[in-house]
Amino acid sequence: MHYNQFLSLIDIFGTAAFAIAGAFSAMERKLDPFGVLIISFVSAIGGGTLRDVLVGNLPVSWLQNGTAILVIFCSSVVTMLFGHYLKQLQTALFLFDALGLGLFTIIGLEIAIKNGLPGYSCIALSTVTGCFGGVLRDVLLNKVPLLFRREIYALASIGGATAYYFLRRTTIDEDLSKIGCILLIFFIRWIAVRYALGLPRFYRDPAA
Amino acid sequence: MHYNQFLSLIDIFGTAAFAIAGAFSAMERKLDPFGVLIISFVSAIGGGTLRDVLVGNLPVSWLQNGTAILVIFCSSVVTMLFGHYLKQLQTALFLFDALGLGLFTIIGLEIAIKNGLPGYSCIALSTVTGCFGGVLRDVLLNKVPLLFRREIYALASIGGATAYYFLRRTTIDEDLSKIGCILLIFFIRWIAVRYALGLPRFYRDPAA
Amino acid sequence: MHYNQFLSLIDIFGTAAFAIAGAFSAMERKLDPFGVLIISFVSAIGGGTLRDVLVGNLPVSWLQNGTAILVIFCSSVVTMLFGHYLKQLQTALFLFDALGLGLFTIIGLEIAIKNGLPGYSCIALSTVTGCFGGVLRDVLLNKVPLLFRREIYALASIGGATAYYFLRRTTIDEDLSKIGCILLIFFIRWIAVRYALGLPRFYRDPAA
Repeated sequence: MHYNQFLSLIDIFGTAAFAIAGAFSAMERKLDPFGVLIISFVSAIGGGTLRDVLVGNLPVSWLQNGTAILVIFCSSVVTMLFGHYLKQLQTALFLFDALGLGLFTIIGLEIAIKNGLPGYSCIALSTVTGCFGGVLRDVLLNKVPLLFRREIYALASIGGATAYYFLRRTTIDEDLSKIGCILLIFFIRWIAVRYALGLPRFYRDPAA
Repeated sequence: MHYNQFLSLIDIFGTAAFAIAGAFSAMERKLDPFGVLIISFVSAIGGGTLRDVLVGNLPVSWLQNGTAILVIFCSSVVTMLFGHYLKQLQTALFLFDALGLGLFTIIGLEIAIKNGLPGYSCIALSTVTGCFGGVLRDVLLNKVPLLFRREIYALASIGGATAYYFLRRTTIDEDLSKIGCILLIFFIRWIAVRYALGLPRFYRDPAA
Repeated sequence: MHYNQFLSLIDIFGTAAFAIAGAFSAMERKLDPFGVLIISFVSAIGGGTLRDVLVGNLPVSWLQNGTAILVIFCSSVVTMLFGHYLKQLQTALFLFDALGLGLFTIIGLEIAIKNGLPGYSCIALSTVTGCFGGVLRDVLLNKVPLLFRREIYALASIGGATAYYFLRRTTIDEDLSKIGCILLIFFIRWIAVRYALGLPRFYRDPAA
């Protein structure tokens, strides 16, 4: 119960952080308020929607989740009205985003396991859940997805998902290993941003 | 019966209007005839397809709907061959598009209600049905979706869907309220375009 | 058995060719290694995934297909490490790609027929299976899909699918007509590239 309340809080703050990041991206592209709202929604629910569609968990979960819709709507409107103030909360937003990434990854993993998928597919689906809201957001905003050029983001999700996948097979308490893996993803993100770590990129061959 | 014939006519003309608008966008981007055909299809059936996938109404409906496929195919070919003449029919195409938006919105709403979804999801799905063909078209043509920058378009759909959602709970005749809401969406679109109404946009913060 | 082994080989080489083509596109866009991996996956499994979602064949098939995932992963990593050498294999890669297009088209057609869809939908779905991995790849890389501007590619897929659809109704051996149609698609592609054939494109009306 104590754990679940903690997870519900992360869920709400993580959803809000994803929606706020989406709203900022959309406002930078000069969309109108309706466009900003749509991009907030896609950012926050896109990953879970794609996961639900791929495994056949239909109707997709947000259609039945009034809380998430309300949180996203309010986050988006608040960002439109008070964006300037929110920019001063960048650190807080980063923390929520990293916690959200952790939680959504673990939720995706559990749904994949419940559908009886093999291990590599479980980890793929959990990463899709955590990361693909941002990919869909960037596609709608006509940009090459940030995920493909970003400091260790998907890798944090993959690392935490793999850890949880193996911890579930041990006798360690499930809630404890869940929270442990969310924090693992959080810390990988924190270290990646703190030390500006990233994967090397490929450059266009000048002779090609 | 009389009502249904009227709705079937709107369905055909609306589908054609969506397909023709798609074909024009694709021709502007210098696609080859096959590309124009695909964009016509995506414009006309994209919204309904996304709705069917999200609620799990599979196989998606156009796979079984020979009439729609024929209408889209002919509209696209005619646009490729006689595009110059069609441009002089711009007013007629706008009227068909507005009627189509109305009808597809109401169809989406009925499918959502039949799936037992809560009210806000019904309205979201009906807007997806009416508007997201155009979003998918713009994504495939590598543009920021027009929907997010356009005069009152999605808002007309949301307005009509909300009105129908509440009218269905009254004792007013269902066919009558259906046609009333299609016309409501039509008139909101007409007024928005006639007076060049739109939502204010967000501008990139020059200091950001 | 003999036929099936031949088809399994085409499957593996075709999947690899699609994944390698995806990896090259992603490296040209300077993505990081994780981005390259994702684009390889989307190129190779995107078409089949979209087909599975549209007909409701869920969970989508790659989630259960360990071989495909392994082939794609290795192809992508090898491309990242030894891309320069692979470029000298361009002819081999083109051949694999054309064979893969043939096989994936026929697989898509069989799944559509098994789902009891009408003829035109079967052919549409088989083309989606063969061609839309590349469309999704281009959308993620923020380009107008090459498919819409390319030498006879989708047309080869449509031609082979139509031939197989009608051959299945004759008494000709099923495996034989399958291989015949894969080779038909292969030869249309070969001739189109050999003689640089393409469909005429539409140009933006300068006066518009």
